[in-house]
Amino acid sequence: MEWTREKRYLPYSKWNAEELLDLQAEAANSDYQMRYHLRPISGLINDPNGFSYFNNEYHVFYQSYPFGAVHGLKSWVHFKSNDLVHWTNLGLAVKPDTKTDSHGAYSGSAKEINGKLFLIYTGNHRDQNWIRTPYQISAWMDKNGKVEDKKVLFKNPDNITEHFRDPQILEKDGNYYAILGAQDKAQKHGHIDVWKSSDLENWEELGFLNFSDEEMGYMIECPNLVQVDGHPTLIFCPQGLDKSIADYQNIYPNMYVTGSKIDFEQCQLTNPSKLQNFDDGFDVYATQAFNMPDGTAYAISWIGLPDTTYPTDKENWANCLSQVKKLSFKDGKLLQQPVDAIKTLRRNEENVDGQTIKENTTGQYELKIKIKPNQAGTLYLAANNDLSQNIALKFDTKQGQLILDRSKAGKVSVSYGETRQIALEGNSELDLDIFVDHSVIEVFVNNGEHVMTGRFFTNPDCQRIIFDHEIDYTGKFWNMESTM
Amino acid sequence: MEWTREKRYLPYSKWNAEELLDLQAEAANSDYQMRYHLRPISGLINDPNGFSYFNNEYHVFYQSYPFGAVHGLKSWVHFKSNDLVHWTNLGLAVKPDTKTDSHGAYSGSAKEINGKLFLIYTGNHRDQNWIRTPYQISAWMDKNGKVEDKKVLFKNPDNITEHFRDPQILEKDGNYYAILGAQDKAQKHGHIDVWKSSDLENWEELGFLNFSDEEMGYMIECPNLVQVDGHPTLIFCPQGLDKSIADYQNIYPNMYVTGSKIDFEQCQLTNPSKLQNFDDGFDVYATQAFNMPDGTAYAISWIGLPDTTYPTDKENWANCLSQVKKLSFKDGKLLQQPVDAIKTLRRNEENVDGQTIKENTTGQYELKIKIKPNQAGTLYLAANNDLSQNIALKFDTKQGQLILDRSKAGKVSVSYGETRQIALEGNSELDLDIFVDHSVIEVFVNNGEHVMTGRFFTNPDCQRIIFDHEIDYTGKFWNMESTM
Repeated sequence: MEWTREKRYLPYSKWNAEELLDLQAEAANSDYQMRYHLRPISGLINDPNGFSYFNNEYHVFYQSYPFGAVHGLKSWVHFKSNDLVHWTNLGLAVKPDTKTDSHGAYSGSAKEINGKLFLIYTGNHRDQNWIRTPYQISAWMDKNGKVEDKKVLFKNPDNITEHFRDPQILEKDGNYYAILGAQDKAQKHGHIDVWKSSDLENWEELGFLNFSDEEMGYMIECPNLVQVDGHPTLIFCPQGLDKSIADYQNIYPNMYVTGSKIDFEQCQLTNPSKLQNFDDGFDVYATQAFNMPDGTAYAISWIGLPDTTYPTDKENWANCLSQVKKLSFKDGKLLQQPVDAIKTLRRNEENVDGQTIKENTTGQYELKIKIKPNQAGTLYLAANNDLSQNIALKFDTKQGQLILDRSKAGKVSVSYGETRQIALEGNSELDLDIFVDHSVIEVFVNNGEHVMTGRFFTNPDCQRIIFDHEIDYTGKFWNMESTM
Repeated sequence: MEWTREKRYLPYSKWNAEELLDLQAEAANSDYQMRYHLRPISGLINDPNGFSYFNNEYHVFYQSYPFGAVHGLKSWVHFKSNDLVHWTNLGLAVKPDTKTDSHGAYSGSAKEINGKLFLIYTGNHRDQNWIRTPYQISAWMDKNGKVEDKKVLFKNPDNITEHFRDPQILEKDGNYYAILGAQDKAQKHGHIDVWKSSDLENWEELGFLNFSDEEMGYMIECPNLVQVDGHPTLIFCPQGLDKSIADYQNIYPNMYVTGSKIDFEQCQLTNPSKLQNFDDGFDVYATQAFNMPDGTAYAISWIGLPDTTYPTDKENWANCLSQVKKLSFKDGKLLQQPVDAIKTLRRNEENVDGQTIKENTTGQYELKIKIKPNQAGTLYLAANNDLSQNIALKFDTKQGQLILDRSKAGKVSVSYGETRQIALEGNSELDLDIFVDHSVIEVFVNNGEHVMTGRFFTNPDCQRIIFDHEIDYTGKFWNMESTM
């Protein structure tokens, strides 16, 4: 089947229900499907949207195209949770059903305001000549999940191209602010544009946020500001960023800077740090974070990348969201840690030792190990007997190095490299908290100083976990309960 | 909208995907929706089908009509589990896609045979004059959930009317047997018809099962034989049963008899007990049970009844399945108990005492209490402040009586009575393990000697639990985690 433009933007009402039920069953039955990560009910998902706390529950939406593994006509699908681990699927929430979001209800954010959930997102409109207009739209969701009262708030100002999207709603000192990804018309550079409103209806542009002296490539997507233990932290996706500014290997990076203070009125993040990769693996993008009323910061990421194909495309579904990560600051470092409630998924705890950790897993587990200092070796996961298939963690606790290697992990894109590497302190113990969910691996390194996330596609029956030789370590293994 | 015959039997491909997505969201967002019971993804569900153990996992399907709260064109929707509590939705599995199941892939059963799951079900066919032919059909499901190789095995023999359905596959002494609900042509009475095959392809009728001297009304649905601690136990749904034979109040009962021995060749259940209600509440029907390889017996029920409407019909969804119940025999009594893994859903354990147990629940909880002997009173659940809305348990531990009263539990059918009553031993402690899931209550009485199950529809904000006066009891309360 050819994914023509016409087909990708066909209204949902022109697809038939049997096709959708078949696509839902196909996604659900895949051996590569995630069972404790938020996954597509059918088709393709991308950015998390509207990650928030409302009516005493956590909420998250994701960008969804229900009819195949392509970026077609997008909508928001809604999930809620009491613990950030067990999610209830509440289904399609924001539809592309007005003229101003006719070609997609694109990414945005949410915040509880006066007992309702305020949504702000980008409506993607194309005219007959396929000229795009991005509308920034608000809507309100009530406690029964009903989204209504869509209203266009503003369009791209004259100095910004059609690349103007992904509003994040923020509140400070009694005013509302929105930050958006933008491309200026003059130089075609990426920016974060700041807007202000006192009533959520009338908005004025304050200008581009000053957070770096460097040029941010040709576009910034998904800007997201969150307070982490008092540090304003700006997470964003620069596209076309020069690698001399910040090193990265993915097609587009998901980066962050921290500062000492955010001043929206002056469009200033004070004392910005240098750019750093938010995740040190292969497939994290469009991370969205928010602060709880008590200040706790939680983040969730799209595991997937723009302009990238994956093997499950041929099964008509693609991508997932990451587990929720709790953000904190320690010794000047941003830490990302699993939320406590993830432990409620653990079943059948085992202490593990020896060269072979498991001969046969279910593909759905947590492995937490501490590797003693001054050793080098390889931990193979999702491996077969002759190790011709595996996803590998190559560690050196003398020099201080960790490599995630998916060169033997099935048909994943090789254009952007098959390994990701991080430097660690030498002569030190290495703490790895590894979460595997069929075709996703998330490795929390040294209590969250780094996270390495990746998709992998070894054969589903490759389920060994084994070191390449005897290693001095301690560890625990759990099967993880399904939540999806 | 009028549910014409044409509309109810419209092929799934004639509905549009947006309608289905809307129906799925509407069902998911309902305040009355179940969160730890198997519930409709959209539309109406009824009988559990194919409850079985296959490929080291538990499987169950349910009868589904995805497009509204009516009995339209039925299919099977598939779920699997590792623990009988956390279920993974695998979507549409058996479709009405051949001539012989053109008007519904009706109820049936499943059993692992030679590394695949053998399915047997009733294909419902109607001709142009709306004359019905029931075909008994087999199919095979592989480990990836793919159902194929549909084959018609047999039709109703000359002495049986079009009411011939719900085959259960059984194996004994190297032969396969199927038992089916049937109505004879001569007298229009209900029967259980026994069939035999050595190869699952060629089948011969052995005749009606002899398990009672009484007439079983005009039809028997959903016959199900299971071994419970060595006692062959026949669970079935007689329609039109004379109440002098066995007392019941529901429109149609779900009953069981036990015997000392089952002899399929002689069509004989030896030493049958009298008929007893499987559940002592309002809404249990079509219970399906099976034996694990080690003999353990598990049962699951439809919570819902034929020819009955519920308030959520106007939200376009209806019914759910019960929690899984472990069956055992003790002192000549059939016991039904929650499975151990249900405890993994418990959160926030509290000891409870006093007249008021909770002022405000989430509608999703387990309450386990022991009421001391020689007391009478009422426990109100899902109650509001003035108790004008509630579902009530009226107990008398002196005389030995328990009543489930839903007369103030919202708009539920009153035609078949608003209370259900059981007799208990007098002067004895009463042990109640009460599971509430928004609009479902399941009360396990005295460690499973009785189960009282019912739907209720008090306003969603009615969330008090309170006794009518001070009662001498001990108890524990847990919030229950969502699984759906």
